[in-house]
Amino acid sequence: MIIDSHAHVVMPQEMYRFMADLASSRGNPVPRFKPPEEPVRAAVDGLIRKMDEVGTDIQLLSPRPFAQMHSVRPSLVSRLWARAVNDAIHMMTQMHPGRIYGVAGLPQFRDESPENSIEELERCVKELGFVGCLINPDPVEGDGSPPPGMGDEFWYPLYEKMVELDVPGMVHSASSSHPRESYTLKFINEESIAIISILESNVFDDFPDLKIIVPHSGGAIPFHMGRFRAWNLRRKEPETFEQKMRKLYFDTCNYSKDSLEFQIKMLGVDNIMFGTERPGTGSVHCPETGRDFDDLKPVIESIEWLSEEDKVKIFEGTCRKVYTTNFNPGA
Amino acid sequence: MIIDSHAHVVMPQEMYRFMADLASSRGNPVPRFKPPEEPVRAAVDGLIRKMDEVGTDIQLLSPRPFAQMHSVRPSLVSRLWARAVNDAIHMMTQMHPGRIYGVAGLPQFRDESPENSIEELERCVKELGFVGCLINPDPVEGDGSPPPGMGDEFWYPLYEKMVELDVPGMVHSASSSHPRESYTLKFINEESIAIISILESNVFDDFPDLKIIVPHSGGAIPFHMGRFRAWNLRRKEPETFEQKMRKLYFDTCNYSKDSLEFQIKMLGVDNIMFGTERPGTGSVHCPETGRDFDDLKPVIESIEWLSEEDKVKIFEGTCRKVYTTNFNPGA
Repeated sequence: MIIDSHAHVVMPQEMYRFMADLASSRGNPVPRFKPPEEPVRAAVDGLIRKMDEVGTDIQLLSPRPFAQMHSVRPSLVSRLWARAVNDAIHMMTQMHPGRIYGVAGLPQFRDESPENSIEELERCVKELGFVGCLINPDPVEGDGSPPPGMGDEFWYPLYEKMVELDVPGMVHSASSSHPRESYTLKFINEESIAIISILESNVFDDFPDLKIIVPHSGGAIPFHMGRFRAWNLRRKEPETFEQKMRKLYFDTCNYSKDSLEFQIKMLGVDNIMFGTERPGTGSVHCPETGRDFDDLKPVIESIEWLSEEDKVKIFEGTCRKVYTTNFNPGA
Repeated sequence: MIIDSHAHVVMPQEMYRFMADLASSRGNPVPRFKPPEEPVRAAVDGLIRKMDEVGTDIQLLSPRPFAQMHSVRPSLVSRLWARAVNDAIHMMTQMHPGRIYGVAGLPQFRDESPENSIEELERCVKELGFVGCLINPDPVEGDGSPPPGMGDEFWYPLYEKMVELDVPGMVHSASSSHPRESYTLKFINEESIAIISILESNVFDDFPDLKIIVPHSGGAIPFHMGRFRAWNLRRKEPETFEQKMRKLYFDTCNYSKDSLEFQIKMLGVDNIMFGTERPGTGSVHCPETGRDFDDLKPVIESIEWLSEEDKVKIFEGTCRKVYTTNFNPGA
């Protein structure tokens, strides 16, 4: 079975219109909005076709990250919008049961405590059957000073709730206000920052059952393992940097076979789960392979030195291990 | 010959004292300072021993990046300090002629135009015989909004002067004010930001002779080549992302053999120059190899699929090609 752990919702025009209204009106007066059934169905049917084209059985679907409006004032905007998108994702899970599982967007707001997100996370997991959530390490979106790093106690209210609900969080930044750093690059940089911040903190001492997934192959860190290995030794840390890295989970959302082989070599196969972000940045035809960049199944299948068992881990095993609440697909 | 293109000065205590005075007094009243000869000699003799230990013939020496005080107000602090450090480096070049070449630190200041740095760059190249300079893409050091990306015309006054003097610039950030992002990680992130900002701009159309070196293996970009290849295709750019990358130069300051092999595979051998940042983050004993992490000569020598010609390019050829003004060491 092929489980794509990293996919973002495709929204119908009606939702973009609501988003635009909300961004401009700032939620004043407070609008009412319910995702419209037929356009949502058309959108998810298109998504299912995209999955079928590449042989994906299941996608874990979260909000389109850069369109989360975490820095748009007031906080009501993020709150109303997160709820609307999560509702749309929930409708999609109902329209194709067993093919789509929901991963919640949180109504994070600038440097406000992530306590602001607990209610929506609880609603998504307990009422909508969602299996996890996104965590944006910089909801200020570059428009001011970021909140403390993910190793800081600032994040503990959210971590407590995640452990209580037994759901993982996927680190994924949203938009970027600085023209010098596109959102697609900010994803990578924020992942590197999150990894180092968490691994240099007490987070896993305080929350041994916390499950954190770092997508896009773990940002820059696998490529600079030697640097952080040396740094870790200089600080005389009791654990090696490799041991620390094994507390995190990673996905395969990296559009180069060489990079994927390198990643698996550096991190080992056990903590890596299949993820493509399809459709997204990689949904463009590669002139060399003749396939879309985000069609990663044949890429991983073609890595000769991976055993069949390794491939099963990547395609479904790790994901099943990490996503447990509300997630129990058949064989 | 082994030319280490990436090394930072080791400073005697007297210079740290001046630095501390300057940071606290803010240069008011304006202090007088001249690097003291004997302590500077002791420092550079120690550096030469560090080079000899690993078989390095030449080091290109620049200021210790995180100690540049680019964001400390007023701008006078950065100006006085850059001058003092460049003077110390110059003394070192005179004490060991042919072993040490100077790479200038610039008196960048927060989001002030890099015009502020032209006079010092000119002094260093014309009077002190320096061969290049560092460029800090974020002299605000995370303490506020960064200046525009390196693809922006904001940087053109500096680029013009670099082309006029025919000296390359090495992208190297300095300190980091956010506890979530250590300076050693910010180096990597700023390099990724600089690469994408430059390659998505008109910089090389406007300055075809500009020479930019991105150290630390090019930040995260080689590991995420597929992502930017796809992004580039989606934007229907006339050049491929690989073609764009070949306009930049990179070094080998990466403390893992796997990563170095991967880097050379992804970027090709032609634009890569030897660089170690020794002594620095990697100056710690690796328990597996029994050598310091930043002892990279045997690592590159042990890459079996590199030809002798390739190794000569990495160890000296690319550096000789890029550094031309004031740099003409014998065979």
